[in-house]
Amino acid sequence: MLKIVPGKVSVSELHQYLLGSVSPRPICFASTISESGVANLAPYSFFNAFSSNPPTVVFSSNRRVADNTTKDTLHNVQANGEVVINMVNHAIVQQMALSSVNYPSEVSEFEKTGLTPIASDEVKPFRVKESPVQIECRVREIIELAKSPGAGNLIICDVLCLHVNEEVLDDEAKIDPHKIDLMGRMGRAFYVRASGDAIHKIHRPVTVLGIGFDQLPESVRLSQVLTGNDLAQLAALPALPGPQRIAELLSGLAKVEGNGKHEQAKQLIAAGKVEVAMALLL
Amino acid sequence: MLKIVPGKVSVSELHQYLLGSVSPRPICFASTISESGVANLAPYSFFNAFSSNPPTVVFSSNRRVADNTTKDTLHNVQANGEVVINMVNHAIVQQMALSSVNYPSEVSEFEKTGLTPIASDEVKPFRVKESPVQIECRVREIIELAKSPGAGNLIICDVLCLHVNEEVLDDEAKIDPHKIDLMGRMGRAFYVRASGDAIHKIHRPVTVLGIGFDQLPESVRLSQVLTGNDLAQLAALPALPGPQRIAELLSGLAKVEGNGKHEQAKQLIAAGKVEVAMALLL
Repeated sequence: MLKIVPGKVSVSELHQYLLGSVSPRPICFASTISESGVANLAPYSFFNAFSSNPPTVVFSSNRRVADNTTKDTLHNVQANGEVVINMVNHAIVQQMALSSVNYPSEVSEFEKTGLTPIASDEVKPFRVKESPVQIECRVREIIELAKSPGAGNLIICDVLCLHVNEEVLDDEAKIDPHKIDLMGRMGRAFYVRASGDAIHKIHRPVTVLGIGFDQLPESVRLSQVLTGNDLAQLAALPALPGPQRIAELLSGLAKVEGNGKHEQAKQLIAAGKVEVAMALLL
Repeated sequence: MLKIVPGKVSVSELHQYLLGSVSPRPICFASTISESGVANLAPYSFFNAFSSNPPTVVFSSNRRVADNTTKDTLHNVQANGEVVINMVNHAIVQQMALSSVNYPSEVSEFEKTGLTPIASDEVKPFRVKESPVQIECRVREIIELAKSPGAGNLIICDVLCLHVNEEVLDDEAKIDPHKIDLMGRMGRAFYVRASGDAIHKIHRPVTVLGIGFDQLPESVRLSQVLTGNDLAQLAALPALPGPQRIAELLSGLAKVEGNGKHEQAKQLIAAGKVEVAMALLL
């Protein structure tokens, strides 16, 4: 393993290892207003939700590593404590990226990006009309982590309300990841488009305790065919099937000739037939 | 737009709208040790990096919405202030998901998930051997946002060191998103696999100011063919090309018959020939 120790590498190098590792990151496209009334838009990926009750999101506007200056977004929230966080989908990612450069403070990134400002309900900063979810926030507290180049300023925000474009909802009025089509930030120039084939579904009700790897028979646990992901799905079963259940599960199963039990089990797991796979292996 | 106002919907509903919107989220697979010596593993997606200098990551271990109880990870970091954050790639995502259920405190999730504990350099909690990046941390501060069900506890961590598996590095020793193959958390049962075709590259040096949408000719800005993403790439050019440069750019360009200028420009932009597209449109 490569060991990276802060202080023994440059801040820029450490920064890139952190960005490449702590990924993918949600993008906070922050809309604020300056004391002189200029509307500002800037993207931040040191951002996440942190609580539902009270609903709280946090982002950081960091000191620039190059010259230790601070950004307009930070000045604006320090002055008036209001921000609208707009989520970034694939359709607006290039326009968002346009605003990541350092335009002078008196320039509105709404004009530069061509995005449409619309009035918010609870705060002065505008929402981005094209954004699929717009979150109106009041800043609760700003925690300055340090005054050194690269230092973060945690901007802790109370969520006042969310506006969700109905087009991103499924039939049950829940957000559909394919429809909302969000972009996440990775290291360097990389982003991830979080929709389509990249989406995986893993359903684990917190109340159902899986038997765990320690309860899998050794012949299964030490399989040369089954991967950790395969075994984990077997280990998530709430119990090992007993003899009668095994007979039931295997009754309709066609034997695959010239193929080992573990290969067949692997295919059953991939097809979602995890309990049948377990029965076959016992 | 659907407007969601905290207090007017249930905490669970609000929680799901936040999770579906603030996505994709990096996964903190937190390894801690209890006062009685039990090794604990649990995943958290209210997590991100927030600063490079001092290197700081923050995650939240929230009160359970169902019964307002707190989790073992929180008890452990309150007791000894040490945690190892292991990043989750596709190869271990099912094993990680196994640990998201509520096993009793005396059960070690290392045994249940089959993942391998290895000693850390600076702290007592184990690293997860199979994880591509392991981040040893000391807790600087815990901020309790409230005592209500769903309330977050911000666990602010100083990064002591990172261990990076060399297999995820490219030729320049930088983290390659395709090799590290990280998983991000979305709403409900959804995850995103952040590698392969899902990865997009957008290069925007912060020192190069794009001309912006406001400097694009109206015939371009109001195009019925070019999307916001297309226009943003034109608007990211540092200047509009002059007559001589336009002639140069267009000299080798084959005319596409039966196809409008905007269609041809769109194809050029998709092929990365943004300045040629601009020349064609002027």
